Amino acid sequence: MTWTTDNQKNLMLFAGRAHPELAQAVSDELGVHITPQTARDFANGEIFVRFEESVRGSDAFVLQSCPYPMNQWVMETLIMIDALKRGSAKRITAIIPFYPYARQDKKHRGREPISARLIADLLKTAGADRIVTVDLHTDQIQGFFDGPVDHMHAQGQLAEYVRNKYGTDNICVVSPDAGRVKVGEKWADSLDGAPMAFVHKTRDPDVPNQIKSNRVVGEVAGKTCVLIDDMIDTGGTIAGAVSVLKEAGAGDVIIATTHGVFSHPAAERLATCGAKEVIATDTLPIPEDKRFDNLTVLSIAPLLAQTILEVFKNGSVTSLFNGNA
Amino acid sequence: MTWTTDNQKNLMLFAGRAHPELAQAVSDELGVHITPQTARDFANGEIFVRFEESVRGSDAFVLQSCPYPMNQWVMETLIMIDALKRGSAKRITAIIPFYPYARQDKKHRGREPISARLIADLLKTAGADRIVTVDLHTDQIQGFFDGPVDHMHAQGQLAEYVRNKYGTDNICVVSPDAGRVKVGEKWADSLDGAPMAFVHKTRDPDVPNQIKSNRVVGEVAGKTCVLIDDMIDTGGTIAGAVSVLKEAGAGDVIIATTHGVFSHPAAERLATCGAKEVIATDTLPIPEDKRFDNLTVLSIAPLLAQTILEVFKNGSVTSLFNGNA
Amino acid sequence: MTWTTDNQKNLMLFAGRAHPELAQAVSDELGVHITPQTARDFANGEIFVRFEESVRGSDAFVLQSCPYPMNQWVMETLIMIDALKRGSAKRITAIIPFYPYARQDKKHRGREPISARLIADLLKTAGADRIVTVDLHTDQIQGFFDGPVDHMHAQGQLAEYVRNKYGTDNICVVSPDAGRVKVGEKWADSLDGAPMAFVHKTRDPDVPNQIKSNRVVGEVAGKTCVLIDDMIDTGGTIAGAVSVLKEAGAGDVIIATTHGVFSHPAAERLATCGAKEVIATDTLPIPEDKRFDNLTVLSIAPLLAQTILEVFKNGSVTSLFNGNA
Amino acid sequence: MTWTTDNQKNLMLFAGRAHPELAQAVSDELGVHITPQTARDFANGEIFVRFEESVRGSDAFVLQSCPYPMNQWVMETLIMIDALKRGSAKRITAIIPFYPYARQDKKHRGREPISARLIADLLKTAGADRIVTVDLHTDQIQGFFDGPVDHMHAQGQLAEYVRNKYGTDNICVVSPDAGRVKVGEKWADSLDGAPMAFVHKTRDPDVPNQIKSNRVVGEVAGKTCVLIDDMIDTGGTIAGAVSVLKEAGAGDVIIATTHGVFSHPAAERLATCGAKEVIATDTLPIPEDKRFDNLTVLSIAPLLAQTILEVFKNGSVTSLFNGNA
Amino acid sequence: MTWTTDNQKNLMLFAGRAHPELAQAVSDELGVHITPQTARDFANGEIFVRFEESVRGSDAFVLQSCPYPMNQWVMETLIMIDALKRGSAKRITAIIPFYPYARQDKKHRGREPISARLIADLLKTAGADRIVTVDLHTDQIQGFFDGPVDHMHAQGQLAEYVRNKYGTDNICVVSPDAGRVKVGEKWADSLDGAPMAFVHKTRDPDVPNQIKSNRVVGEVAGKTCVLIDDMIDTGGTIAGAVSVLKEAGAGDVIIATTHGVFSHPAAERLATCGAKEVIATDTLPIPEDKRFDNLTVLSIAPLLAQTILEVFKNGSVTSLFNGNA
Amino acid sequence: MTWTTDNQKNLMLFAGRAHPELAQAVSDELGVHITPQTARDFANGEIFVRFEESVRGSDAFVLQSCPYPMNQWVMETLIMIDALKRGSAKRITAIIPFYPYARQDKKHRGREPISARLIADLLKTAGADRIVTVDLHTDQIQGFFDGPVDHMHAQGQLAEYVRNKYGTDNICVVSPDAGRVKVGEKWADSLDGAPMAFVHKTRDPDVPNQIKSNRVVGEVAGKTCVLIDDMIDTGGTIAGAVSVLKEAGAGDVIIATTHGVFSHPAAERLATCGAKEVIATDTLPIPEDKRFDNLTVLSIAPLLAQTILEVFKNGSVTSLFNGNA
Repeated sequence: MTWTTDNQKNLMLFAGRAHPELAQAVSDELGVHITPQTARDFANGEIFVRFEESVRGSDAFVLQSCPYPMNQWVMETLIMIDALKRGSAKRITAIIPFYPYARQDKKHRGREPISARLIADLLKTAGADRIVTVDLHTDQIQGFFDGPVDHMHAQGQLAEYVRNKYGTDNICVVSPDAGRVKVGEKWADSLDGAPMAFVHKTRDPDVPNQIKSNRVVGEVAGKTCVLIDDMIDTGGTIAGAVSVLKEAGAGDVIIATTHGVFSHPAAERLATCGAKEVIATDTLPIPEDKRFDNLTVLSIAPLLAQTILEVFKNGSVTSLFNGNA
Repeated sequence: MTWTTDNQKNLMLFAGRAHPELAQAVSDELGVHITPQTARDFANGEIFVRFEESVRGSDAFVLQSCPYPMNQWVMETLIMIDALKRGSAKRITAIIPFYPYARQDKKHRGREPISARLIADLLKTAGADRIVTVDLHTDQIQGFFDGPVDHMHAQGQLAEYVRNKYGTDNICVVSPDAGRVKVGEKWADSLDGAPMAFVHKTRDPDVPNQIKSNRVVGEVAGKTCVLIDDMIDTGGTIAGAVSVLKEAGAGDVIIATTHGVFSHPAAERLATCGAKEVIATDTLPIPEDKRFDNLTVLSIAPLLAQTILEVFKNGSVTSLFNGNA
Repeated sequence: MTWTTDNQKNLMLFAGRAHPELAQAVSDELGVHITPQTARDFANGEIFVRFEESVRGSDAFVLQSCPYPMNQWVMETLIMIDALKRGSAKRITAIIPFYPYARQDKKHRGREPISARLIADLLKTAGADRIVTVDLHTDQIQGFFDGPVDHMHAQGQLAEYVRNKYGTDNICVVSPDAGRVKVGEKWADSLDGAPMAFVHKTRDPDVPNQIKSNRVVGEVAGKTCVLIDDMIDTGGTIAGAVSVLKEAGAGDVIIATTHGVFSHPAAERLATCGAKEVIATDTLPIPEDKRFDNLTVLSIAPLLAQTILEVFKNGSVTSLFNGNA
Repeated sequence: MTWTTDNQKNLMLFAGRAHPELAQAVSDELGVHITPQTARDFANGEIFVRFEESVRGSDAFVLQSCPYPMNQWVMETLIMIDALKRGSAKRITAIIPFYPYARQDKKHRGREPISARLIADLLKTAGADRIVTVDLHTDQIQGFFDGPVDHMHAQGQLAEYVRNKYGTDNICVVSPDAGRVKVGEKWADSLDGAPMAFVHKTRDPDVPNQIKSNRVVGEVAGKTCVLIDDMIDTGGTIAGAVSVLKEAGAGDVIIATTHGVFSHPAAERLATCGAKEVIATDTLPIPEDKRFDNLTVLSIAPLLAQTILEVFKNGSVTSLFNGNA
Repeated sequence: MTWTTDNQKNLMLFAGRAHPELAQAVSDELGVHITPQTARDFANGEIFVRFEESVRGSDAFVLQSCPYPMNQWVMETLIMIDALKRGSAKRITAIIPFYPYARQDKKHRGREPISARLIADLLKTAGADRIVTVDLHTDQIQGFFDGPVDHMHAQGQLAEYVRNKYGTDNICVVSPDAGRVKVGEKWADSLDGAPMAFVHKTRDPDVPNQIKSNRVVGEVAGKTCVLIDDMIDTGGTIAGAVSVLKEAGAGDVIIATTHGVFSHPAAERLATCGAKEVIATDTLPIPEDKRFDNLTVLSIAPLLAQTILEVFKNGSVTSLFNGNA
Repeated sequence: MTWTTDNQKNLMLFAGRAHPELAQAVSDELGVHITPQTARDFANGEIFVRFEESVRGSDAFVLQSCPYPMNQWVMETLIMIDALKRGSAKRITAIIPFYPYARQDKKHRGREPISARLIADLLKTAGADRIVTVDLHTDQIQGFFDGPVDHMHAQGQLAEYVRNKYGTDNICVVSPDAGRVKVGEKWADSLDGAPMAFVHKTRDPDVPNQIKSNRVVGEVAGKTCVLIDDMIDTGGTIAGAVSVLKEAGAGDVIIATTHGVFSHPAAERLATCGAKEVIATDTLPIPEDKRFDNLTVLSIAPLLAQTILEVFKNGSVTSLFNGNA
């Protein structure tokens, strides 16, 4: 007798505990249930995870968002991946909508870590075969992982929302600092070639790390400014940019960001900085105490679900972005 | 001209932020200052570390204790090691008095992680060349790391204290569960061949994971019982063991442990469980709110300092334990 | 034209030369023939292996038992795995019922190897993707391998045999040394919560490594003692334990072990030590000259065959043990 | 709902730019189109590659020949493999008919590289899972790659051509140097046990690396000599061998080689050296300016196509050579 | 007898063949001779390297610049490193002033390679322990290498030259595209907080990859514009930027770049584009046919020599840049 | 206070149990004692090793010869290396005079292992940093190890002995098979350009693997034939070659080999085959029962000792062979 079988594969969805709403939304979009698991914290902070169904041979997708306290969720992700590896999952894809430590993607000065590379190596070591993520702080982080990285973009969704609501006639795309101007250019392209501006920070040579003043480079007077950023943490930089724009005579200021980290006191700052609207996605949980009146949240779940499905079926993810991903 | 120099090496000591008292004590013992560093937490929990002195070519010892919140300190350790690796430290030794996730050293059931192995791999990936640790939950964890592990023991120090204070005439060494009997045997040897006992837990076959009853195996009536464990977390097991011993007619009960995790409500339990004294070391910080009247804390700093010095000078660490380490 | 085919997989069984009876029994249980091979030893001890059928794309299971001369069989296993890797097998599972060097799972003292970890790394290096093994000396050895380890247990089979033949009313489970008490507790659970005992060895402080005396801890007088161990090598420890039990007034003594190494003079010792019956499995070959009158051998082949089939079909192996594996 | 699909796989063929004729011939034989790609050189020599179709989940075969300028094509191969790895190809096979740097397969003297091993490691690092190659300079190069190497042979094709055209009655197989005698023996076997000879080079002990004289070892007078070599580069050695054979009274001399590197001035040398015919395969491109009158080129494309198909279908490649590959 | 010696180390300098002038200049600065080697190209493009002095135990620095034909020099570097590794060099540092494939540091679209990461992995695989490089296209490339990267900057030297010659009163720093604005900000800081501008490229939505128009964002009228870039290849972008600046009313335009790739027709374009002066360093060779009248070349050799010395002596490289490297 | 010390290193010599005479001879030559160790075999064949002195920071040289039973000694070597790695030796060099499994250096046919590569990988995995070996079966095996391999040659010693005793006037160098002709050519060079011959084996096409006849290729009549081989195992091939040479009219036949494996019945065959003298080295132990009257054994110990010293002192090993190693 010979044992020969078709080599079927089945999609299994796993969810860390950091952002259950997003996991549920992706599960609903996919029509695939979240694999039941035991996950708990010991008194000294150790995490324990065990899956309640056999994962042997599965095409496993582990969805974990990494809000505060980030290290907790990073470790949970690694532990889940380790359990899948040892439980004989066939392929393990880490879905990390907000990539941890993305800002530490280089040594700004000597004797610093490059934590974003470290995260990629930790995921690999634990057993991740591939990564899916959204709007990395810099595109180069893709290259930190030794394997396929599907880099999704929320910009299309955000820009579409802006276009529908504000039109593109009087728009100016503004980057809050020099490092985001490249991304700003992509925004300008998608808003019919809108003009651009950015905020130039000058440093005081006599006081290390001290910003001396901010100037707007580019014409913003009377324009509806779309102030963009990949993430907003405490909101200080972005609120400062609104202020500088207003001083420079800008009209309405709309803030658009993929990752709404919104650490305290972001909610207060964003509510009162003078921006007309703040648009973010739900790559990170935005609980009630982080929300404010002029905030609009778009859901990233449909994009993630579609990506998971294409990855599972070996379809093209690039096609989701007209070849630009 | 030819550039040839003696290949000197210099010891540098680095300390994570989890247990500054221990780091200072080790620094004082060694007479080596802790390398100044910037270490801070971003609002979303990301850790940033930068060393203030050049680490190039150094023999770097990174001391980090891992109390609650453990994942925070694990990540800080990895990030510090990454910064040392990228800053060209010559050799990196992680000094981890309390090994994280030591209890998850095997799959108790299917689809579980082996987090203690994962920790070893993460340390290796970040760049650690070797590990120094104290009283591992199981000795086999040494084998999880692909490199030298110097496994120190606090037992000698603890047993010496017991012997001096209580003598060995009427002593009985008691293991609180079946898994610690082997360690108990070593204690019995070091207390002049004292008799042994252990607490046998029987499970209810009708209710999964339900303990049915605890019985003492061995003679404890009238004895001064030294109840030993590698770590005490919330103290439930150990307090239960005291209670069973008392029911079995035991005399005084002394609790001795290396790692005083003492998560709530350990302090209350240990203070009221009937034990005459609880002896622990300071591998983990024991702040005021975790302390209680009958607690004695011995310092592990001299042992760590001596180990660091032997490792640096390529001396024998084994000799610190009369060849038994 | 496009070449697209269903990605079928087929199970192939390979057998080292150490234990042909077990290989044949597994083959019969599975209904899968052992892949024909050329395997021979050169005059200087080098092993040559070549498979007679294409192994390309196969799900390969390599069954090898490791009796004396163990190093011979370890190397044969590694060489077979190398040939499979280079012959393009898709997945390679090493079935090693008795894990080699399992007793060297830690450094007992300084400057020792951890050979059990070394074995895991050698298997990985040769090309093994996963391991199936039975009753490891310590559970932590699972964590030595960087990949899935399916850890099977013969205890259920052995305990069932004891229950059927001896009942559980007057049973006491005895561990021959302090290190096996944890396993003894599992046995006690599976024999209706039977009481426990163990043999406590005390060392003479004046003579290094010299056992001074053995004492039974726990009540055994009049009991039918089930003396358990994972493996019995020369039988010295276990025969000594029988003797101590008899002195302590034990009734019948039954010895149960998974791995019958039975090196000389085990057969004589076990036949004459006073044990009523010795029960072992055939994870290792037990040729005629190692057998003795009161020996019962249970076959591990059905368990191995069932495991192979579940692994091949991506079924749950855990389910074979009611979730406890 | 559960997503479970048959795990289909599809063959995709990719071609580097070094030898488009061979790629097209293999494509035609297979009936599989070459995946369209963008490949171009930047002004400073950097290569850019992008595939125009999704490669996700594919069984990818990358065909690249490595003629002059070899390093260009090695890098292109590595870059194509990197793009496939990051584009989520399931399995990547590098088809390298002429293995680069095969002659540097050992340290001839101290402080030399072993570039043939380096090439194997570079391919592995880029992401190649397996290699298919033809007539390696030495068989041991197979062992340089950590994975399956399918080593194809053109000798059968070449010998068949010789047999058909020249018969085997008066044949003598001649190796142009001492290192090829082993291969010559295989040729002799396949030409009905023809006699053998080789050219012995003696070195002048007074002048380093200076050949003193060449002698024919073996009987060649009046014989039709088949002078064999794995590759012919500038043709100096082989033309010299023809000359020595003629002096020793040889009859017709036929040169047979797998890899026609034919660097300048090979064409002129081979045309005028006195050989009756030179037979080569097209593992490397042989453009018009490298061709000469007495040259016969046999195509390797059918063998490569058949190999690709067997690898894809998990068939036996060994069977293509009657078990001798 | 006991053999114990001081572990001396000696600096050895090795040079690839791409840029002998720079190697000689570094050698002269250091006062360390370039280790003699045999390096030649075979007719088919294979490179052979052999060192003429023992490299055993050395602290080896391999200097290689990568101009056209880049792949040739990349392979030569890898082969040299392999020879050092196999020749027992103790530590191998690759000095690569112009990092190859730096522009391919991310997937711009799907199914592209990340060749800059590939280069880092190839260097690691060959045996490089660390990298020294100058002005990476993006800082994140540091994180592509798993080990120390000393990232040197020529900006200080270039800015000092500009300041001395042109003063800072009427200066405006201009980035030729959106991606360099961040670097421009650093320039502005070092030129006393000079104002900034950049060239915004808009794309035609109807024609893929078609630039529609370039606009200057920021005030440049009447200013002396310092147009900066990390590298200038064919000079098209930068010449276009000069043109746009001039249209926008700029005064003198000074071009400053670290890496003068200057592929044809850069010399002509730069000579005629209207720029007053073009300043570059000699990280790449700039032979006569690439030079033009308004070109100034500053030497990077002193910086490289100083870095090598600090790395050898385990000094601080960061200190060369006032803590900003 | 700062701890800075000179980084001294000390040479430690370790010896496996396979060839104590050679180890002692090397120890005597070096004037370095063999580090005392405990090494024993358990009843089931497991090996235990422990070093009796601290190895921390040492430059460790592990000498192990691999005669029958080879796998035993291979495993002992790996275990010793593991113990050194875990005991913090600084650098580990495996001195393996006779490389195990050297004959399995390629796949002769499909589905074979490449055991010589496997051995290299096992040594690396255990922790060996470098290898010293003597007269590899094929030079390419150097490339199997990812690190420095110092490949020593006994040929000089053997040839010197032949020259002194037999002169070079009437010498003919004979290779016993086609694969050794290249090595024969080196011998011919070192014996003043002596003529060469080899034994050509023809296979019967009707019977697989059946040798049909052996013929001598080259002139041997009346010559003193030096029949060379890297190793002699059972002596069948070499004795057959003597016989064929005698039939072809050869004068005296001298056999010279580096590795005297001399498996039964080599002693008898070599004593009676008609060879005048058999010369071998002691890379392998040659106990009394393997010796025979016309055997001469030269010691390899001085060469090994000199190599160890050069490696320790970072001298040139190549210089031991006039640049030819």
